This record gives sequence, C-alpha cells and structure tokens, in this order.
Amino acid sequence: MMKSTEEKLKIVVVGGVAGGASAAARARRVNANAEITVLEKGPEVSFANCGLPYHLGGEIEDRQKLLVATSKMFWERFRIRVRTGHEVQSIDRVAHTVTGRTVDGEEFKLPYDRLILATGSYPYRPEFCEVMAENLFQLWTLDDMDRIIAYMKQRPCKKATVIGAGFVGLEVVEQLVRLDVQVTLIERMAQVLGPLDPEIAKMVEHELTKHGVKVHVGADVQSFLTNNQKITAVKLAEGDSVMTDLVIVGVGVKPRIELAEKAGLVLGKTGGVVINEYCQTNDADIYAVGDMVEYLHGTLGTTGRMPLAGPANRSGRIAGTHAAIGRSQPLQPVQGTAIVRVFDLSAGSTGLNVRACRAAGIDFNSTIIQAPHHASYFPGACNLTLKLIYHPTTRQILGAQAIGGAGVDKRLDVIATALHFKGTIDDLAGLDLAYAPPFGSAKDPVHMAAFTAQNDLANYPTLDAFDMQLDGFQVVDVRTAAEIEKLPLPNAIHIPIDELTERWQELDAQRPTIAVCHSGKRAHVAACWLKGKGFESVTNLNGGMSIRRLSGP
Amino acid sequence: MMKSTEEKLKIVVVGGVAGGASAAARARRVNANAEITVLEKGPEVSFANCGLPYHLGGEIEDRQKLLVATSKMFWERFRIRVRTGHEVQSIDRVAHTVTGRTVDGEEFKLPYDRLILATGSYPYRPEFCEVMAENLFQLWTLDDMDRIIAYMKQRPCKKATVIGAGFVGLEVVEQLVRLDVQVTLIERMAQVLGPLDPEIAKMVEHELTKHGVKVHVGADVQSFLTNNQKITAVKLAEGDSVMTDLVIVGVGVKPRIELAEKAGLVLGKTGGVVINEYCQTNDADIYAVGDMVEYLHGTLGTTGRMPLAGPANRSGRIAGTHAAIGRSQPLQPVQGTAIVRVFDLSAGSTGLNVRACRAAGIDFNSTIIQAPHHASYFPGACNLTLKLIYHPTTRQILGAQAIGGAGVDKRLDVIATALHFKGTIDDLAGLDLAYAPPFGSAKDPVHMAAFTAQNDLANYPTLDAFDMQLDGFQVVDVRTAAEIEKLPLPNAIHIPIDELTERWQELDAQRPTIAVCHSGKRAHVAACWLKGKGFESVTNLNGGMSIRRLSGP
Repeated sequence: MMKSTEEKLKIVVVGGVAGGASAAARARRVNANAEITVLEKGPEVSFANCGLPYHLGGEIEDRQKLLVATSKMFWERFRIRVRTGHEVQSIDRVAHTVTGRTVDGEEFKLPYDRLILATGSYPYRPEFCEVMAENLFQLWTLDDMDRIIAYMKQRPCKKATVIGAGFVGLEVVEQLVRLDVQVTLIERMAQVLGPLDPEIAKMVEHELTKHGVKVHVGADVQSFLTNNQKITAVKLAEGDSVMTDLVIVGVGVKPRIELAEKAGLVLGKTGGVVINEYCQTNDADIYAVGDMVEYLHGTLGTTGRMPLAGPANRSGRIAGTHAAIGRSQPLQPVQGTAIVRVFDLSAGSTGLNVRACRAAGIDFNSTIIQAPHHASYFPGACNLTLKLIYHPTTRQILGAQAIGGAGVDKRLDVIATALHFKGTIDDLAGLDLAYAPPFGSAKDPVHMAAFTAQNDLANYPTLDAFDMQLDGFQVVDVRTAAEIEKLPLPNAIHIPIDELTERWQELDAQRPTIAVCHSGKRAHVAACWLKGKGFESVTNLNGGMSIRRLSGP
Repeated sequence: MMKSTEEKLKIVVVGGVAGGASAAARARRVNANAEITVLEKGPEVSFANCGLPYHLGGEIEDRQKLLVATSKMFWERFRIRVRTGHEVQSIDRVAHTVTGRTVDGEEFKLPYDRLILATGSYPYRPEFCEVMAENLFQLWTLDDMDRIIAYMKQRPCKKATVIGAGFVGLEVVEQLVRLDVQVTLIERMAQVLGPLDPEIAKMVEHELTKHGVKVHVGADVQSFLTNNQKITAVKLAEGDSVMTDLVIVGVGVKPRIELAEKAGLVLGKTGGVVINEYCQTNDADIYAVGDMVEYLHGTLGTTGRMPLAGPANRSGRIAGTHAAIGRSQPLQPVQGTAIVRVFDLSAGSTGLNVRACRAAGIDFNSTIIQAPHHASYFPGACNLTLKLIYHPTTRQILGAQAIGGAGVDKRLDVIATALHFKGTIDDLAGLDLAYAPPFGSAKDPVHMAAFTAQNDLANYPTLDAFDMQLDGFQVVDVRTAAEIEKLPLPNAIHIPIDELTERWQELDAQRPTIAVCHSGKRAHVAACWLKGKGFESVTNLNGGMSIRRLSGP
C-alpha cells in the first residue's frame, strides 16, 4: 500500500516494553514525517525489565532508574504518541485497522499503514499455581515487582521459595539472599540453568549452596499447603515439604501471540510468529519483534524462540527502520548467548550445548579447560572454566559455556562473535586478543580451549568424556600427592608429572591408558609423552578431576 | 634433511624468553623422542616480562611469581635441556650447527636438524643515553628490574622521569606513582600512546595529569645534566629542565636480528626476519618467532613487526609443532591488538588507527560513541568511549580504539575477533553478545558504535569530524542549559533536544546545519529530525562536545 508523498505514513506499534519502544524511536529517526503511535496495555511505555530482580533485592536502589523512557519524553523528543492502558484486541488486515479497549473500558480503533507487533511474552503459569494465595508471585512486570516488595515490607519473610532455576530465577534467588532471606530453589530439571551442560550447572549449584541456598533439582512441585490464603509449605512429589513465607515462580515464558494468531499471522513450530529478515510477518505490512517471534539460530540454521533482550532490541530497530522507509539492514541470526551473575560467579553460554547438539543430530566433540582469567602472576586472578563444543570434521565452533569469578562475559562474547562468522577452532586459536597482565594472558583461556580442541582432533592425544567409566583402563594420575589426598581417584597409578619422564617405563605400554590431572593440562603433557613412547592407546580425561568430581548426582 | 626413524631429531631453540620456551615445550608435546635444547644467553629460561613494571611498583609483591618456568622443570617435565648463559654467535647453515660462547667465556658448538630462533628484541637506546649515570635505566630484563629496585631502595627517589609514553612506559609511570614518586613523563610525539588517535590519547593524558603526573608531549630530550655520575635534570630541546632523581627510558624496541642477518636469513622492509605461515625463514630448517620477525597484518595485508606477547606465544607454538613433526596449523594474521591500564582507566586499540589508514592510503570513516559499560541503571556503570574506523564502501571494519573504567578489553576483543574474520560494521551491529545488567546492555557499546557507523554511511545523517571548523555553519546545540554552562560552545543556537520538535522552525532550513550534543546521541536524533523536515544539509558532530573539547592543543 503506497502512500502519496503528502499523506503521512501511519505506523502503529503494539506493545512498548518488549522491543516496541525501540522500534518506534528508530522509525522516527529515519522518518521525521510518519505518524507514529505506540499502544501499550500496561502503565509504562518502557521499563528495564532485566533490572526488576535487582530492585527487588535493593541492589538497584532507586525504582525510578528502571523507567528508561517516559511517554512525555516520547512525545517531546520524538513526536511519538504513546497510549498506555491501551490493549489491542484485533487486527483488521484488510481495512488496515486495529481495535481494542482501554483500561477504562473504552473502545478504540486506529488505522495503520504499517503495524509493528511487540506483544512480548508472559510467564508460564503451571497448574500448581491455580490456588488463591497472597504470597504467591511471578516477576515479570513492574507491578509484579512492586507487589512483592510491598508484601515483604508488610510481612517480614524469613523463608522464600523460588520455583524455576532459569536465568531470572537465579537472579531472584541472589537478591533474596541479599535481603537475608533463607531461600529454597526448586527446579524440575535435573540441574539448574538448562542452557548449561550438567557439569557446568553443577558449579552454579555449588555456588548457590555455598551461599546458603537449599537447592532441589529434579524436584516436582506437587502442591502448595495453604492456610488462610497463604502458602505455608511447598509439597514436592518426592515427599519433602519446604516451609515457606513466600513463593516466586519463574518457570519459563510463553509468547504472547493471541492477537497475531487471531489475525491469521503464520506461527512456527516453536509457537512464535514467523518473520523474514526484515521482521515482516506473512502480511508484509505487519512486523513482529521480540519474545513473540522465532529467530534464525546461527548454528542450528533453524528458527526458534529466543526470549532475550538483545535480539528483541535489534529486531525492534530493524522493524522500525523497514516499516518507516521500506528498507533496512537484514536481521542477523541469533546465537542464544546468555549470562547470569550468581553471587561471586558468572555463568553463561552461547551457541549449542551438548543436549542441543544431540537433539539436532549434530556430531560434536568438546573440551573443558580451566585457566586464570588474567595473568596468573598478577594479583586477583580468578579461575575460569571454559567448555568449547566443536564439530570433529568441519572443526566449526558449535557452542561454548563459561563460568568463573571474572572475565566470563568477555570470553562468551569473543566466541559468540566467532560463531557469528561460523568460525572454527583454528580461528579461535589464532585470535589476536588484547593482552596485558591485568586483562588476560598471552595465551588467553579462549586460546587454551582452542588449542586443546586442536590437540583433540589431531589425536595428540584425544580427550575422553570427563565422566567416563575408568574400569579396565590403566589410569595414570600425574597430580601431586597433596592434590590426590584432597580429591582421591581410586585405582589409579600415581606418577607425579615431573617424575613421568623418568618413571614412564613402570607403566604397561600395551594397555589402554588414560592420563589424569586436576584440569587436564598436565595430563595432556603426560599423554603426549606416553603416546610418543609407543603406548598403543593414550587419552586425556577432559577437564581432569576438577570436572570429574562434578559428574556424580 | 630427513632423519631415519632411529635417529633422534635434534631441535635447538635460541632464546627462551621471547617465545622460545613455549616453542620448545610444544615441540616436546608433539614429539616425545626429539632431542630438544634451549640456548638462552640470560640467566632464566623464561620469565614474565610483561610483569616487570608491576613488581617494580610492588603490585606483584613476590618476585618469584615472575619466574614462570625453570630449567629444572623443563628437564623433569619435558626432558628439554636448557643451557642458560649460552649466547649463540653464529649459524653454519650448511653444516647445521650453531656456535657461541657461554657467560664464562667457553665456546660451544651444537648440531641441529631444526633451529628455532627466538632472540626477541632489545630496547632502543637513543643518543642522549650515551652518558655514564648510575640512575639511568631501561626496563627490559629481570636484571634491569632488580637494578632499579635496588637503586631506589638505597637512594630514596622523590622525582622520577620516564622517557617514552608507550604501553610499557605508562605501566612504569603508574607503578612509580604507586610508590609515591613524583613522575614526569616525556614523549617526543605530540601525544602519548602512538597506537591511539590523538583525541583518545588525550583522555589518557588527562588521567595521568589527574594522578599527578607531569606530562610533556612533543618534547625532545636534548641532554641530561649530571653531577657525580648521576643525572640531576633532563634538559628538553624546548628549554625546560626537569629535575629528577631517576630516569627510565622506554622509547621502543629493535628486533635482535644480528644472528639471523649474519646467517643470511632474509629480512623484511621493517627490519624483522621474514617467515612463512609455519614460521620458517628462507632456510626451511630455520624457524623464527616473536619480536624478531615480521607478521602478516590482518587488515593491512602487509607484513611488519609487532613486538607483542600474544603473537610471540602463538608463533612459538606453531614453530615448535612444525619443527618437531613437519606440519602444523598455519599462523594467523595479527591485528596488533594492545591494551594498557592507566590508573582508573584502560585504553587500547586493535587494527588500524587513523594515521595508519592514511599512511596506507586506505579510505576510511570513523565514529566515536560513549556508552555505559553495562546497563546504566545498574550500579557501577562506567563511561566507555569507543572509536570505530571502517571503510565507507566495503563497510569493512578497519580498527577500533576504546578507553574507559571497565569493559574496555571486552569490546576490543570482540572487535579484534570481527577483524580476524574481515567483518563489516553490519556484522558488529548483529552480534549476539552476552547480556545481563551487570555485564552489558541489550544494545552494547559495540552495537552502538556499529549503529552509528551504519547511520553515517546511510546518510541519516553523516558524521562530521569532531574537530571540524564550525564557522559559517548553523550550529544547533541540543544540550541542556546546565551542560552548556559547564562546557560552552560559542555561536551555537541553543534548542534543548526535547524542545526541538516544537521549535525547529526557528532554524534556517537553507543553511548547512550541524547538530551538537554531549556525546552525539541526542544530536543524531536532532539531525534526523531536521533532515526529515527538509533541511538541505544536516550533519552530526562526531562524538559531540565530550570529544571536541579534547581537540585543542
């Protein structure tokens, strides 16, 4: 539908919070003459939803800071009309109008030339939540946050239960602990943080436990025990009951696609709206962005939902541009990069994890290394664990996970960038990264992981699964006696690394041999030596004992 | 020269410190049977040379920490013979031998099958240093460091002069200030830190000045005034004299190539040894790595010296592998990424700066943005300045510079990674980086810089040089009155951004117009608006007043 130059292009944005405000502001910048209206059903055109947990715990003191943009500013600066309290209920694609109802019950109808849907998502509400209880909360909106804070002010809470150990769940846990609340975390999966592989997730669990959080993984909530419209305990299917003063549920989100669906917009396999590279739906005049859509995954090459703030913002920008002037840069594929701070650790991932590789039938190898986040001789070096997943023949990077006290975000970002370019482990090994002792090492953890992967694929020597069955192998433990005492490995032959070149002939060169140390680094040296000395089969236990100890239940 | 399988391959490494130790250890890992010898003229096979300034100032307390590997460990763990105090003086390429002299005056001769040269570099010693003075130092070896520390212990130094404002020079300055020494920094160039563009370097100078350092840039040392074999003052060509108790000179390094040159190895235009992608010189049995060689520059496509620890380590690894088994991954091009901490700021660069683009005749545009290093509403956000240099037609990234209180290394590493892949500004704009409020923003500074570059090239609207002559233009200053009072811009028309959509008709649409704010962000909004309203020529002052104020002398 082309407009004559005199006629003003009408752009209507549905939803401000979830990428819509950003789309509208961008549309104005590239088109000073369009009529732009944002219809938001909530009370604020935009707020910092990622900041909600942090105000809950008081780390962000001033609530005002969460209100990143106001309707007034949108009008004064951008001449964008914001209508809060306006819920759009239907789209007439032929007439090019949207209709809906205000919070005061008034009906409205608005014409559009281009429509941008940014209706976002809402928290999944499991069946056990179907109970009247004043101390049962979810945390998704400013209003949710305000109600929790108000409740906790009125009724001091000593014990809280968080159900769901995703990224937001863990942020909430951390902030509740900050308020001196005794927190129990309940997660249905066998681990916290689904995007991480189990052994990395286990490190997060240790950190939670270390800070007094009671962690129940693989635990199904059966029901809530209530008294006087208050939950007093959470009953688990396994039989345990957890006493509680407060329950916050965060078990994932669902795309808010009722409006899109009703309008006949095409949905994808994972339930999000299908868009093209300019964020157009099957109706070229209707765009969709943010949590409600399916993005192209850079590594998988398939589309799926990735309810994350980064892609929401970037898609908003592209939709806003294209809606306003009919052209824009294309939306780039998403890698699913995510990170969370959990007390003194940060943990995150990018690309595919092991489960995702298996689900997609993608062949993979992986390596886990440990390295200081900056020069080990410089004060303040924190241990960083980096897992790299790669294809054994194309050598392409498939994904990575990292956890540690500092520098985790940097390594994830470097690998996410390499993923964007479909880079290989050899690319990673050759990156020219910024080095000075306060920032990294001449061989950065990213390099170390890539080197280890190269060694693995070159068979000098290959890596074993960290949790493999060791029975029947000749296991050589090259750690020091002190290390072994702290963390024993039964049935291993102990030859400290610095004695191996002298004593290697004590070993049987015919038996399949596995070298083990704390992190895999010295075991690599040992395995190389033995292989070079004619041992028929030598491998290196991936990640060493520091990772293996995490493999148990 | 092929060896029979029974005969042991002899690998000789000349120089342990500058990549050689790393080459030797790697050679052992891929070849357990080679005879490997490291000949190092100094007393240690390897030490953390990047840590020297930090022990000088006491930030690294324990000197022992700088000794990353010992000869004993090399023998016990790797069966590598280390001969310290062994200076190689000539190579007989036909006979495949090296000869030299030990520190005790004994001659030695050693056969090799593969020779790896890692002789590194030495500090350039300008003419004015040709003076006998017990308080004149350079800082390149452990011994240099020990002598400075010993001197300062014996004779308390109140005033020190550092000559040369490169990366190491600034580290020394910082550490001397840490010891409560009054430091004067003298630099011949018109700015500190040559790899940075002047306006970014100026921020470093401000930080130095803020911490009490007296900075003389564009200052030539004429001579030293001495008394009793001690320098008492540094006389500058401009006439000033700087009283001093101690002088440390660090004005760049020269490759140590005498041995290579004598052996007839080919040198490149910049004076380093020419190597192929496996670090082989023109003699296929002789490898060279580290500060003494020329690397391929990723962006320039030409070779040159890059005396940095990262490339030295990576080239050592590749030479060690190839020398030991005749194959290896190829060496990847270098981007020249470097970083330094200067008090509360970090500053660094990757790829080309403006001067390098001009010298190479490469067309470029650039943008300078300012953004908080993580979500602005999350406590502790530090301002980060990011300059991105890109090609106006291919859109390829050419280089970047960053400075700020935190997160500088991360952004440089992301852009260095994109440079490795010859990425464009559009790649940067689409990166899926790790975001949560403690780590970044949904729109990371890297995205913001890329967006600004995209706007510039799409002409919505273009950017002006931050230091351009404003006379004759209609300059619209959209800052607040309070901001303008703090940092005035004479002859500008003041319309606060949030009044512009109301008041823009006060301006003359026929006159060439420049929008200005503090960082360029609001000016972009303003320029977009005016352009859309039919203004004939509207541009945005790159980086705004925050950068322009740095353009003066």
